[in-house]
Amino acid sequence: MRNYKNSRDYGCWLNYDLLPPAFLAKYEQQFPTMAVPRGMALTQSITAELRRGLGGLVGQVPNLVEREDEAAVALRLEDAAGSPEGFKLTVRAGEGLLKVLISSPGEQGLLYGTFAFLRALQLGEVEPGWELQESPRSPLRLINHWDNLDGSIERGYAGQSIFFKDNHLVEDLDRVRDYARLMASIGINGIAINNVNVHREETHLIAAKAEMSRTISCIFQDYGIRLFLSVNFASPLEFGLDSADPLDPQVQSWWKERTRQLYAEVPNLGGFLVKADSENRPGPFTYGRTQAQGANMLAEALEPFGGVLIWRCFVYNCQQDWRDTTTDRARAAYDHFKPLDGQFRDNVVLQIKNGPMDFQVREPVSPLFGGLERTNHLLELQITQEYTGQQRHLCYLVPQWKEILEFDTYARGPGSTVARIVTGSVFPLRWTGLAAVTNVGSDPNWTGHTLAQANLYGYGRLAWNPELSAEDITREWATLTLGHDGDVVDTVSQMLLGSWETYENYTVPLGIGWMCNPGHHYGPNPEGYEYSKWGTYHKADHLAIGVDRSVQGGTGFAGQYHLENAQMYETVETCPEELLLFFHRIPYTHVLKSGKTLIQHIYDTHFLGVEQVEEMLAKWQGLADKVDPETFAHVLERLQGQLVDAKEWRDVINTFFYRLSHIPDAHNRKIYP
Amino acid sequence: MRNYKNSRDYGCWLNYDLLPPAFLAKYEQQFPTMAVPRGMALTQSITAELRRGLGGLVGQVPNLVEREDEAAVALRLEDAAGSPEGFKLTVRAGEGLLKVLISSPGEQGLLYGTFAFLRALQLGEVEPGWELQESPRSPLRLINHWDNLDGSIERGYAGQSIFFKDNHLVEDLDRVRDYARLMASIGINGIAINNVNVHREETHLIAAKAEMSRTISCIFQDYGIRLFLSVNFASPLEFGLDSADPLDPQVQSWWKERTRQLYAEVPNLGGFLVKADSENRPGPFTYGRTQAQGANMLAEALEPFGGVLIWRCFVYNCQQDWRDTTTDRARAAYDHFKPLDGQFRDNVVLQIKNGPMDFQVREPVSPLFGGLERTNHLLELQITQEYTGQQRHLCYLVPQWKEILEFDTYARGPGSTVARIVTGSVFPLRWTGLAAVTNVGSDPNWTGHTLAQANLYGYGRLAWNPELSAEDITREWATLTLGHDGDVVDTVSQMLLGSWETYENYTVPLGIGWMCNPGHHYGPNPEGYEYSKWGTYHKADHLAIGVDRSVQGGTGFAGQYHLENAQMYETVETCPEELLLFFHRIPYTHVLKSGKTLIQHIYDTHFLGVEQVEEMLAKWQGLADKVDPETFAHVLERLQGQLVDAKEWRDVINTFFYRLSHIPDAHNRKIYP
Repeated sequence: MRNYKNSRDYGCWLNYDLLPPAFLAKYEQQFPTMAVPRGMALTQSITAELRRGLGGLVGQVPNLVEREDEAAVALRLEDAAGSPEGFKLTVRAGEGLLKVLISSPGEQGLLYGTFAFLRALQLGEVEPGWELQESPRSPLRLINHWDNLDGSIERGYAGQSIFFKDNHLVEDLDRVRDYARLMASIGINGIAINNVNVHREETHLIAAKAEMSRTISCIFQDYGIRLFLSVNFASPLEFGLDSADPLDPQVQSWWKERTRQLYAEVPNLGGFLVKADSENRPGPFTYGRTQAQGANMLAEALEPFGGVLIWRCFVYNCQQDWRDTTTDRARAAYDHFKPLDGQFRDNVVLQIKNGPMDFQVREPVSPLFGGLERTNHLLELQITQEYTGQQRHLCYLVPQWKEILEFDTYARGPGSTVARIVTGSVFPLRWTGLAAVTNVGSDPNWTGHTLAQANLYGYGRLAWNPELSAEDITREWATLTLGHDGDVVDTVSQMLLGSWETYENYTVPLGIGWMCNPGHHYGPNPEGYEYSKWGTYHKADHLAIGVDRSVQGGTGFAGQYHLENAQMYETVETCPEELLLFFHRIPYTHVLKSGKTLIQHIYDTHFLGVEQVEEMLAKWQGLADKVDPETFAHVLERLQGQLVDAKEWRDVINTFFYRLSHIPDAHNRKIYP
Repeated sequence: MRNYKNSRDYGCWLNYDLLPPAFLAKYEQQFPTMAVPRGMALTQSITAELRRGLGGLVGQVPNLVEREDEAAVALRLEDAAGSPEGFKLTVRAGEGLLKVLISSPGEQGLLYGTFAFLRALQLGEVEPGWELQESPRSPLRLINHWDNLDGSIERGYAGQSIFFKDNHLVEDLDRVRDYARLMASIGINGIAINNVNVHREETHLIAAKAEMSRTISCIFQDYGIRLFLSVNFASPLEFGLDSADPLDPQVQSWWKERTRQLYAEVPNLGGFLVKADSENRPGPFTYGRTQAQGANMLAEALEPFGGVLIWRCFVYNCQQDWRDTTTDRARAAYDHFKPLDGQFRDNVVLQIKNGPMDFQVREPVSPLFGGLERTNHLLELQITQEYTGQQRHLCYLVPQWKEILEFDTYARGPGSTVARIVTGSVFPLRWTGLAAVTNVGSDPNWTGHTLAQANLYGYGRLAWNPELSAEDITREWATLTLGHDGDVVDTVSQMLLGSWETYENYTVPLGIGWMCNPGHHYGPNPEGYEYSKWGTYHKADHLAIGVDRSVQGGTGFAGQYHLENAQMYETVETCPEELLLFFHRIPYTHVLKSGKTLIQHIYDTHFLGVEQVEEMLAKWQGLADKVDPETFAHVLERLQGQLVDAKEWRDVINTFFYRLSHIPDAHNRKIYP
């Protein structure tokens, strides 16, 4: 048992707790020495990590030696082809000692190899003859912070910003360094530190406040992470110009000059991230320009410095009239960006949310995946649980992300999965990868709910390699974080892997989405968005619910997919049932493949969801003596709160549908009238 | 036409514009002199008002003379019995001039007589032989500000506070003086300047920030207005004590000493206003004490200085579970306070909201009126239009208030109206009267919507004399503010007098309440409060809507009234239909007295309400050449916005009920499915 409050590691997967006896028997005294190439930018970080890791795990801090052949753990910078981010890790039996060699054409590969070695050690995989050769599947593995300079975090549920406080940097930059270690350990190589909704103060991160950017970027640089900044498309207006028109030569010059000066101050800048023409943010539409013209202008400014311009596709009309049935928000991203495919500069990367709406518990995959063929793009996921319980509920999203990654777009025939698209295997694109909105904050355990760390960890692992299985990632995280007790790892893995389905069961059925409280998005409110301007309507009435998004008779959204999927989504019979209410309007009496009516399915899943939370709670209670008391009590409290709130969801949703339909539960359970 | 932007009067009923020719013919040169008793606290204010009023209205500033018999307008302080707030105003023909005499036993009566004279002059009532004898019907005629020291106003829709900005007083204290004039002109004699939700900064208005209270109170004093302060029941905790228990001798001593010091600094203090044990405010319940024990403790501290303690009865459980059908928020005020009747000290005054809920467009009268027999109490109204269109909609509330005042409680048999209760005619109570939450802010026209001034004016006039008719008050205000054009006065009066019914038509039917957006309370959201903790549920389902509040089978709220009303509200047949959904659960197919079903009534009133707004708009447009262009354009813009929002209300409410009931409109009008 460990009191992580006294540790810089805050109870997470870089704990480096002393290994259990069975492991120590194999590894103790095995790694007395290490050799790390000198003079690399990352030399110090790698050396420190090996000291810290081995010192913690096996109780022996290795001595640094000069010669590779004298070292138990040797790192070798190879003059070879291959990804500088990839590495090869070999283990052989030496003279009474294991000999570990980590080699890479790049120092970043050595850093990733170091973390991989320490992870493998904890998982007991390191033994003679074992080897591992890996390189990341895509060049961009990004984290987005929605942190504001005042320290608040938009959609943050784990305290305040770890970067900013009261419009200055935080004092505790050691924590930023630990954060960089955490991110590097899972392969993250770019972090946007400020909110995509760039307000007045944040606009100055590219100018008067560039020193703040520089300080953080220097820490990141030690871990191979490039700093990205969210920028305000209307910045020129803030700096005295009278336009932000991307075709205005003055505006173009302004951005070029500002970017040049910024790179002089912050050489480790990866580029800019932009939310434009979205939810009242400024953008090229203001000047009658296309999204491509807006993005290209900024990309041109970044190009001389190797920077990339990441441009979000979250563009839709957020002033819709609910009475207007001709507009379908789900269509918006594709309608805006598909016609521009091929018009973007080489260093523009579009960032596309996984679904057409906004990180709901269940959505179809955005048809832009498979739709865009000639434009760099990223898959954007949301680690922070905005709509999925806000880290008060356990909702492990790796299974959701796996479904998204494995979705076959048929863009180049069968097998054109999202995973293959965002790793550049379907279309030959320069920049691909993943980005995700993080769940990290100033809470001691980083993520509010300790088990929500698994989402952060899992995202990084999937960004590194989308083919990793949810099960493997889950067990990895549980072992690294909570230790080697098989019962703990099994139980926590079960809890995590079932939690998304559980959350879906007691919240929003069959892809209908929303039904949460407006604004903060916590808790049930079935009609909370029904008459709003956000384009999010379920149109439930006495007989049926849902919006027809088919081509024949609907909004046509289904037609944005390639033929195989378009046909699948088009009809009620072929549409996957978990998305039935996303694509179709369905009577409550419609009989599902289970033989149940829609309404009975809704009632059943809501009763089931609460029972599943009760089971999760019981499972966790069974671990009382097996995890440290503080973590146990903390997770217990969250699960107890989740149970209360799951019942609220169950009762509100069931009552809502009962009041509408007046169809009773077949099993006569309690539905409040 | 007048550009009120250049005037200190901001376009309101103290404009004192030059009278029209027909009036000038009567009054010009008639008032060359005035005599005002010297040495009174109000001498300066009265003199200045006569100068300003006559100078403006008839174009001649009167000279001050010593002797009453030399003055055209003479004020006389009489050594007589009678209310020092009352006055007698006589007009007789002198030697070629009118002779006006205003007399009173008190200087405050002279001030009110002065304003009455100037008003009568504008209304053309001043002529030989005319006389007016008035005194206010109750001793407390109060205004409550919900202003915070940072300048914000809770439920304010007319800009920022006229008192506070950034935790200091505003710079423009002349405007505060004009405000005091406005209030005195309608007979207001007490103003609570800060929000009943007393936050940290505001807690210090009784201590370190007493200088701010003093400054405002000095201005008020010139107009016979006493300053009230909202205080934090938990103040002792803020000042270092470890309790705020009203029975703790240390707490009692603390309040006595603080109050003593406060009166030394602010002698014009009328007393304290307290919101305790309400919506998360601290109160005696924290210490297991009754509301009476809490109030009496503060009242005892005020007693040596003649101060009164005003204690709000807005006490209810704001953490209700919507599944709990045994709790009825409507019952709360009566259940809490009726058993304490007679236990309060003589200088405690309970302040009771007009209805049992919270200032909805339609509620029954609180059963505490007629219920409390031995406790001083006030009727609390809401001038600021929190639930009635927030000064973006025209909703003139004087007709609502008249209904409330004329409501017969039967407390002492027929005729025991609210008006008679709050003027002390039913029960012999020392302190009675009215209080109202104001709609005033820093907007140039005081109230955001210029026509919303009529609510402020009307409140004061009713507080002075609840028997004034809505029609008379309305025409008075329109004439004083918009001038003597008969068409303008007629049209504006019609618009005002019909606007409450119109607002009710397109918003919330038959007393069901709420159905607005949570938090800010603007715009429709039929289920916005349905699953909340606020105790405000309509429980609409496929067949019916409403909560049964009868004694037989309901929550029993109807039984809180005296027998005549209890019986009336008890049954569907006898319940007034405008309150049908407040007291009963009614099927949509229930046939109303009109012969229409409930659902058809809802549809019809909602279509009608929008048509009525269209008519209001047309009426106003007909005045284009008859009111000053700025006022015309401003009101036009508000009415146009009201029309858009009325259509939104109509469509949302109709759609909501159609989706639930699936009963079509008998007239086949457009209801969005």
